[in-house]
Amino acid sequence: MHEYFIQNVRFHEDEVVTLKGWVYNLRKSGKIWFLLLRDGTGIIQCVVTKHDCDEASFDLKDVLTQESSVIVTGLVRADDRAEGGYELIAHKVELVSLAQEYPITKKEHGIEFLMDHRHLWLRSRRQHAIMRIRHTIIKSIRTFFDQRDFILVDTPIFQKMATEGTATLFETEYYDDKAYLTQSGQLYAEAAALALGKVYCFGPTFRAEKSKTRRHLTEFWMVEPEMAYYDLEMDMDLAEEMIMYIVAEVLLNRRQELETLERDISKLEAIRTPFPRMHYADAIKLLQEKGEDIPWGDDFGAPHETIIGESHSSPVLVHHYPADIKAFYMKRDAEEPKYALAVDMLAPEGYGEIIGGSQREDDLNVLLERMKAEGMAPENYQWYLDLRRYGSVPHSGFGLGLERTVAWICGLKHIREAIPFPRTMTRLTP
Amino acid sequence: MHEYFIQNVRFHEDEVVTLKGWVYNLRKSGKIWFLLLRDGTGIIQCVVTKHDCDEASFDLKDVLTQESSVIVTGLVRADDRAEGGYELIAHKVELVSLAQEYPITKKEHGIEFLMDHRHLWLRSRRQHAIMRIRHTIIKSIRTFFDQRDFILVDTPIFQKMATEGTATLFETEYYDDKAYLTQSGQLYAEAAALALGKVYCFGPTFRAEKSKTRRHLTEFWMVEPEMAYYDLEMDMDLAEEMIMYIVAEVLLNRRQELETLERDISKLEAIRTPFPRMHYADAIKLLQEKGEDIPWGDDFGAPHETIIGESHSSPVLVHHYPADIKAFYMKRDAEEPKYALAVDMLAPEGYGEIIGGSQREDDLNVLLERMKAEGMAPENYQWYLDLRRYGSVPHSGFGLGLERTVAWICGLKHIREAIPFPRTMTRLTP
Repeated sequence: MHEYFIQNVRFHEDEVVTLKGWVYNLRKSGKIWFLLLRDGTGIIQCVVTKHDCDEASFDLKDVLTQESSVIVTGLVRADDRAEGGYELIAHKVELVSLAQEYPITKKEHGIEFLMDHRHLWLRSRRQHAIMRIRHTIIKSIRTFFDQRDFILVDTPIFQKMATEGTATLFETEYYDDKAYLTQSGQLYAEAAALALGKVYCFGPTFRAEKSKTRRHLTEFWMVEPEMAYYDLEMDMDLAEEMIMYIVAEVLLNRRQELETLERDISKLEAIRTPFPRMHYADAIKLLQEKGEDIPWGDDFGAPHETIIGESHSSPVLVHHYPADIKAFYMKRDAEEPKYALAVDMLAPEGYGEIIGGSQREDDLNVLLERMKAEGMAPENYQWYLDLRRYGSVPHSGFGLGLERTVAWICGLKHIREAIPFPRTMTRLTP
Repeated sequence: MHEYFIQNVRFHEDEVVTLKGWVYNLRKSGKIWFLLLRDGTGIIQCVVTKHDCDEASFDLKDVLTQESSVIVTGLVRADDRAEGGYELIAHKVELVSLAQEYPITKKEHGIEFLMDHRHLWLRSRRQHAIMRIRHTIIKSIRTFFDQRDFILVDTPIFQKMATEGTATLFETEYYDDKAYLTQSGQLYAEAAALALGKVYCFGPTFRAEKSKTRRHLTEFWMVEPEMAYYDLEMDMDLAEEMIMYIVAEVLLNRRQELETLERDISKLEAIRTPFPRMHYADAIKLLQEKGEDIPWGDDFGAPHETIIGESHSSPVLVHHYPADIKAFYMKRDAEEPKYALAVDMLAPEGYGEIIGGSQREDDLNVLLERMKAEGMAPENYQWYLDLRRYGSVPHSGFGLGLERTVAWICGLKHIREAIPFPRTMTRLTP
């Protein structure tokens, strides 16, 4: 039996098709009623009259509730006035299951109420658009790396040690031991890069952040490419190329969804490579010129990232951060060792950091010193140090926060809508 | 600057290229020496003579150790006797970093030693082949669903409730609360299917299994499609089609890797759709005929799965298991309610279950009764029950265990080699 879906009715004009879905809305007008049917792929208006329909079907108008599940058989007819350009002249409407009174109505609901009903809120046009764009972003990232012969290497969630400091670790009992949930796959990706050359991992990561900002989740997805024989310059080139590809794919495949979200598409269309590149010292100067009271050596806060990001229509690559404010694994600039060979990519329109990357320290002794200075216990990192003992090479990589990227591309005010079931400091359900 | 990789030297015959990699092996023979260079994409023999090379490069023969990192520039020459059909006439060899004495040698190492050095073991030919096949399997799964208009919906790792019983839950403190690590994304995928029609999730899942078998990991990846308006029959069709697609893609793209693993490729080539389908009662009969002492009502153990799987050259779909041995969310057969509308797919060659699926219970009251009978607390599942309150529809799905599938397709004896960094009851590092 052929399956029909609303997104494909344009291929079936003047054919009789059966669509299976849910009542998105209902409007009655005497001898005719209109059923807005959703099936997950789209929404179509079904026109129900006694002329075209049997009586039992017609009488459902007095029974159907929002989100009741129904199967509608009817004729696909082109109509320019209809959403999507087509409507269905119903021949038969079958009730599958009558919905109880649906909690999400047309009135404004508070965000906590909607988040409590996330499992139902996902049925709305807006959430569909976000989920489809998220899907396309993920797919474009994987395609980007696959086409460049990167090997996907899934890194472990359970780890014995911290990658990004111990303050934000989630811990779990692991039989007679303790394990932490991964904050980043990077250290493992480094091992894989020295085995396979160019690799990426792409999975959930966890940070027990104490922050309740619009940019923080406790559970978020991150893609982390890692490349042997790449220096910072090549790392930045790759990050830029990837972002340009993602944006192009979304513009190509998800224009309708961007319109549903009322995204200002021109902002995405204005993005061009090469992205502006700015030395940290120049970024500090820019901020000071804009009246910010930030001395050399400080890390940027969200307002600083916003100012830098808004200074350009494309994402900005800020590189050469002071080594003291960056992670132990970042290599220092040989000529100016106070700087780390680090880069952050700041999205336009105030969305802040979406990528953090660096060239990695490849010298065993320097790395050991850095770990000692940070009070880390080298015995937990012996395998990582092995990568510098056996065939160390210059290598680089970066991490892209998926939800921050989705939020930016969709133009969302808060990151919580960028993931199907968000987890924050105050939310663990549904 | 153009990047060259060993897998692509065939496009550069008689050109001078620069390859960056590591010493896989070294063989000296008087005035000539041979360097087996690996770069993650392949292995090539570099021929080093004083005739073609400068003296400093030639003299490296007395210095280089296994896994030292080197950059070799030379002429690509076709040679049928060489691995991959090409060799490199070296003009220059540069040492990047001299490796300490490499722990993995040609002698036999015990599996625990190799697993302790997993970060280095990944550099071997055999592990490269497995990782590439794993990559292709994951890619083919995602392509399969993307091409069929499934939407990827990443389900949460932190959950408040159990999906597959409470015995195997990992727990973590979550601020002032407690969270469990997901055993399965299914319940969330059901919510997403009722929103988006056809969805899949694909992420890591966790089970604190007490078993130390060759088929158990504590952390493993699972793909879980879930489809609104699908019954068990459609569910089985989809599972079969997906497996056929995966096998075809691996045969098409990873033949060389299968050969490296000495996989009996004919076993994979013999797989044909439709796969045999067997009612549970018939499977019990088969087992009894084969001399097994298993009564109707018992679940299969690994030896039973092996017997059933080995009875066919294609995977076998066993369906209609007794409801009492299956999960609370599975729908019962209306005509024979002692059976659940469940299916397991058993791989050939003794690899056992790779897929478990079912049609889901869509009746609110029946589901409540099932949960009560199992001693579950409905208050933790209100959002899941909502899916039966608001537009319930017949729906089905299944879960494919990625590492079991990789182990089967690669012909591995133990699942621990099917994932880059395995986690088992006794292993949490590296």
